Amino acid sequence: MKRLLDPDTLRALARGCAVLGAGGGGDPYLGLLQAMQATEDFGPVALVDLDDLPDDALIMPCGGIGAPTVSIEKIENGDEGARLRDHLEYVTGRKVAAVMACEIGGANGLLPIAWAAGMGLPLVDADGMGRAFPEVPQVTMHLAGISPSPAVMTDERGNLIVFRAISGHWMERLERAAAVEFGGAASSTEFSLTAAQARGATVRNSVSLAIRIGETAVGAAGHPVAALIAEIGAFRLVTGKVSDVERRTTRGFVRGSVIVEGLGGDAGRLIRLELQNENLVALERGQILASVPDLISVLDSETADAIVTERIRYGQRVTVIAFGCDPVWRTERGIAVAGPRAFGYDFDYVPVEELAGARA
Amino acid sequence: MKRLLDPDTLRALARGCAVLGAGGGGDPYLGLLQAMQATEDFGPVALVDLDDLPDDALIMPCGGIGAPTVSIEKIENGDEGARLRDHLEYVTGRKVAAVMACEIGGANGLLPIAWAAGMGLPLVDADGMGRAFPEVPQVTMHLAGISPSPAVMTDERGNLIVFRAISGHWMERLERAAAVEFGGAASSTEFSLTAAQARGATVRNSVSLAIRIGETAVGAAGHPVAALIAEIGAFRLVTGKVSDVERRTTRGFVRGSVIVEGLGGDAGRLIRLELQNENLVALERGQILASVPDLISVLDSETADAIVTERIRYGQRVTVIAFGCDPVWRTERGIAVAGPRAFGYDFDYVPVEELAGARA
Repeated sequence: MKRLLDPDTLRALARGCAVLGAGGGGDPYLGLLQAMQATEDFGPVALVDLDDLPDDALIMPCGGIGAPTVSIEKIENGDEGARLRDHLEYVTGRKVAAVMACEIGGANGLLPIAWAAGMGLPLVDADGMGRAFPEVPQVTMHLAGISPSPAVMTDERGNLIVFRAISGHWMERLERAAAVEFGGAASSTEFSLTAAQARGATVRNSVSLAIRIGETAVGAAGHPVAALIAEIGAFRLVTGKVSDVERRTTRGFVRGSVIVEGLGGDAGRLIRLELQNENLVALERGQILASVPDLISVLDSETADAIVTERIRYGQRVTVIAFGCDPVWRTERGIAVAGPRAFGYDFDYVPVEELAGARA
Repeated sequence: MKRLLDPDTLRALARGCAVLGAGGGGDPYLGLLQAMQATEDFGPVALVDLDDLPDDALIMPCGGIGAPTVSIEKIENGDEGARLRDHLEYVTGRKVAAVMACEIGGANGLLPIAWAAGMGLPLVDADGMGRAFPEVPQVTMHLAGISPSPAVMTDERGNLIVFRAISGHWMERLERAAAVEFGGAASSTEFSLTAAQARGATVRNSVSLAIRIGETAVGAAGHPVAALIAEIGAFRLVTGKVSDVERRTTRGFVRGSVIVEGLGGDAGRLIRLELQNENLVALERGQILASVPDLISVLDSETADAIVTERIRYGQRVTVIAFGCDPVWRTERGIAVAGPRAFGYDFDYVPVEELAGARA
């Protein structure tokens, strides 16, 4: 066991998940409330390393699916995780040994903790993205050839669906359609795998990383944004205020764009962020500053709290940062699954540090 | 065993299913082709009575779901039934002993035979409607309190979904959303039940009835429409030609209306049929001639072949008939589930014979 996820740790984790969410994964505040309540009710969840689990231990990756705008209002009822676990065990005939966040970003980095507490299961110090992405097959398990089936989805009412799709693409289509029918958001598990498989098919130590990021921001008296940028090796794209937000919830996603107008030393600059649940691309006068699979996060300029895409609003004073994704996303297969062209953009991926270097 | 469903019997059955489909259930010609091919490949399917099955024999009600306009072009690949059976057995832990048509109407009266042939299973002489209806819970099993879960759905590609819904209403929503995502049509099983349950929860002898109806039309030299009307005790609403068709495929259903202009003795009359997969209501100058749950079928005036709603077109010479549904649909609960108000109409159900009597 690496540590127990006590309330202070959860608070730091929530801040880190917000930064790693790149705007997506759902509002970490709601995930934090659920994880805190479950911890109070059932005791703290143990964080474990994949190396400390037996090779054949079954891991259940899980989280929320849908549009974060919806999940602000349509809250889980708490027993989704146990229902997912029960049915995953029923259809696989195996016992779940630990849960894992499908994505460390946003509320989805915390929701599995709330569920794990109720089930008395540990949380694995790893996730399937090292960030948040909008679509089901955009996980490292998919890159590693793990099947998304059987996937299990449930809603707060108690409906339950088991999917066996012929591909990650079909899993995304079928789960998205169900999530939309549920009202735009649901809870699910896909890509269940053994600890032995997970050691080579996940982003490891991402829970610890998120906690460390959160603690950095909390501990930095005076200049939390600068401290955070230093800690994660991020690039500051602009400091300014949000001057326009265009956002719509459609087909199970939040889509839209945000304009940040530079202030102070950045006066006169206009940065445009385009989003699909997550911030996908940052543009300035048609020039790309950063893009998926690298992370673009919008921080409150005072507190360094990352602001999820569904909470961005006119007038917020923000600092937009970008930083490199896990190396697995920079492989050919990673870029094919989660690079700019996977989201319909007609340009090739260039790592954020190269883009920054070219501008400097 | 009541009889073997040989090719001649299947041809008669297809004609009967068309009449009992009330315009819906899919094009029986396509169902007939599949049943004939499977019979040739695997031998004829046995038709069995529910009384001849052990009490605990598991029956799999099955058929196509979606918009018939789609299923004209998007054909089953033949192994859907076996896949549904395999997964139903997997999730229930029980062996399927016989298949049953969810609805006797249209292609859905024949598709289960094609599947049964490949699986070497008998077909039960019963169905869940005694006709065709568009929505999942509009079956007699639902009226009898049988659970629709676990439902299994598959498509021609091999995707598979298991649904455990909290109500028939949610089963309809979730299955419909999946069918739409599959392209507008899919194959499914719901309301699996034992033979003992089925004896009091189905419309019995409906396969035999459909065969008899089909044989009547075939055997009636000269006046098949008149022979058919006499055989089933139907009311002739109008004889004329189709003068207008408005039809759209939306949200997994065919919706629209048809105008039939009277000819000969009916010259000057205009009958309007409103449809949702099936013919729901027949109106003349705002007066209701017949409505769900009673059956409204459009027959070719020459051959007495019933024309499904997706095949109706301008200029067809037709005779519109209506006849009484199975008594279970005339109970309070039956009318609540499949009467006019269940389809959004603001009028009460009146049996077709009373409406005819009032006009006479």
